Amino acid sequence: MNFKISKRPFYTALTSVSHAISANSPIPSLSGIKIEALEDHLVLTASDSNISIQREVYASEDCELIIFEPGAVVIDSRYILEIVRKIDSDQLQLELVDGALTRISGHLAEFNINGISASLYPDIDFSKQAIEFSVQAKDLVKVIAQTVFAASDKETRPVLTGVNFRLVGNEFTAVATDSYRLAKSVVSLDNNDTNFSVTLPAKSLNEVVKTLEDEDEVIMSVSDKKVQFFLNNTLIQTRLIDGLYPETDRLIPNEYAYEFEIDAQDLLNAIDRASFIKSDGISVVRLEASSDEVVISSKSQEVGSSFEKIVPQSYKGGDLSISFSGKYVYEAIRALNSSKVLIKFSGPMKPFVILNPGDDSVLQLVLPVRTYN
Amino acid sequence: MNFKISKRPFYTALTSVSHAISANSPIPSLSGIKIEALEDHLVLTASDSNISIQREVYASEDCELIIFEPGAVVIDSRYILEIVRKIDSDQLQLELVDGALTRISGHLAEFNINGISASLYPDIDFSKQAIEFSVQAKDLVKVIAQTVFAASDKETRPVLTGVNFRLVGNEFTAVATDSYRLAKSVVSLDNNDTNFSVTLPAKSLNEVVKTLEDEDEVIMSVSDKKVQFFLNNTLIQTRLIDGLYPETDRLIPNEYAYEFEIDAQDLLNAIDRASFIKSDGISVVRLEASSDEVVISSKSQEVGSSFEKIVPQSYKGGDLSISFSGKYVYEAIRALNSSKVLIKFSGPMKPFVILNPGDDSVLQLVLPVRTYN
Repeated sequence: MNFKISKRPFYTALTSVSHAISANSPIPSLSGIKIEALEDHLVLTASDSNISIQREVYASEDCELIIFEPGAVVIDSRYILEIVRKIDSDQLQLELVDGALTRISGHLAEFNINGISASLYPDIDFSKQAIEFSVQAKDLVKVIAQTVFAASDKETRPVLTGVNFRLVGNEFTAVATDSYRLAKSVVSLDNNDTNFSVTLPAKSLNEVVKTLEDEDEVIMSVSDKKVQFFLNNTLIQTRLIDGLYPETDRLIPNEYAYEFEIDAQDLLNAIDRASFIKSDGISVVRLEASSDEVVISSKSQEVGSSFEKIVPQSYKGGDLSISFSGKYVYEAIRALNSSKVLIKFSGPMKPFVILNPGDDSVLQLVLPVRTYN
Repeated sequence: MNFKISKRPFYTALTSVSHAISANSPIPSLSGIKIEALEDHLVLTASDSNISIQREVYASEDCELIIFEPGAVVIDSRYILEIVRKIDSDQLQLELVDGALTRISGHLAEFNINGISASLYPDIDFSKQAIEFSVQAKDLVKVIAQTVFAASDKETRPVLTGVNFRLVGNEFTAVATDSYRLAKSVVSLDNNDTNFSVTLPAKSLNEVVKTLEDEDEVIMSVSDKKVQFFLNNTLIQTRLIDGLYPETDRLIPNEYAYEFEIDAQDLLNAIDRASFIKSDGISVVRLEASSDEVVISSKSQEVGSSFEKIVPQSYKGGDLSISFSGKYVYEAIRALNSSKVLIKFSGPMKPFVILNPGDDSVLQLVLPVRTYN
């Protein structure tokens, strides 16, 4: 292997695949990025065996690439990223000099780094899966960003650590829940004739979102083992989480007794301020609503109390008093990404929903917290 | 206690005194900021018993301050900083409502925070010490910044965890050493007739530097127990470290056999690149110099090797080969803050000095490392 490449696009490509690498991989070669030089392009691969990212790099106006000799090697991602970032030159050369020893040189500096033989890198199957459809990158970012934070971070029910993706007809739905809150976001797809329900690890989706920036369209390919995202020059694939995803629609109330519309930023700020008062590390926020005002308060034996009034923009129903996790409602409102929020309640101990009054494609549901004061 | 104050200057003042607070104070009241309202101004005090900061806040063009009722309370610094930062109002009111319970209110939000009675706050002696002199803030920042990083972070010889300040005649000298390197910086003071040698904790000096920004002149006051820095409205005082500071001047060689001048940024970058190759977590960098070139290299069994050439701007002496800690030399060069550096060597196993060729008021000395290859 021996090639010359422009530093900046090479660094960008290395960084984007490196998102797949986890710090403590049990397989040594997975701490590295596999760099393959083919006849006319490079293939960079990184994986933590749950998520794998592969990116092709071709010569272009912005990227000079001259391949003198095809070949492959695996180099620890920390080393290759640091060297390429720090090298003081617009171009650099990578050359396999002896076994897996790789020379990386630019301007007056030269590094000889102990790589790992490409033959020791796991054989990752990147073949396309049966079901295939296309989705706008911005739609995919929307459904992930509006749900992924609500997935569970506890391994007690593994399926809840993922986001459920479901395609039925033209409706593509993402749902996440940790059983105390639920987030659901829907987009419409054109001309689709496949149905599926798969659950993807939240961690993988966080990496997918990073790579989706600046992209237009994504081809998704789905099987019962994995999901692939094909972007311009980049392929991200993630394993699925086994297990039946719970039927979540029945958790969403059909009827509501109270509802109000309120300025999203005012409510967000008030909850943020109230949330700093924690009891045992948890922020329980109380909401007392009537047609005149919404009062946000919090209290802890140790710290003290807070109290704040906001005037709702509309109000239906009688007086209401309900307590909830400040963090959950804060994250739910933020995910709506709207200037106003509509909150609907069935009763003081029933789950309530937080909606964007101008967009019914997203729903956030939060369970109240029982308090004794 | 009851007063009204502009949010922004109050937050700035709270932040600046909060630098004295350490996370794990054994005395509960020291996790708080003492807020005293006097007839016409506030006094804010914070301390970790090693370093104490006191700041006075007066009404001014930028700071409305109306004191309705004098008094004092101590409030946990995390709570008061977070509330004042988050409160959604240009002005806020602080009022002692019941015992140490303090109401902080602004616009529509109100917090009732459990404070600590001011009577439980330690009595800190802020009285001025015998020796007093003035120094330009920029000079004080210079001598601290050019030395403090070289102090030891190990408690085996406590006196080495500090920076030694010495005033002899008009010469004000700061010295720090961890016994593997030494940093020395000197400034001239006008019209001075006092002499002293005191050792201040490096940690305190790091806080002093933060507070010195945007100041012109500092009055320093010194005794054998503490040092005080009087700035505009702010007083910082720190305890001293007991013990005789070692005579460091004898460590600095009198004669040199080799020397070269080189571009500071080129050398800094080369050492930075070479340093990423670590053996057992330590970056040992090798320098091989001759009249034509300076070669910076590094090597580790595990990672590999690096190699880089720089052309020196001048060179005296024969060929030289020496190894050193990349981190130490990197920090030394950076502290010089100059475009060129002059490095002088007595021999391959002797301490060497790194100088700013345009400024002889600062000296960095580093001990070489013995290597076996």
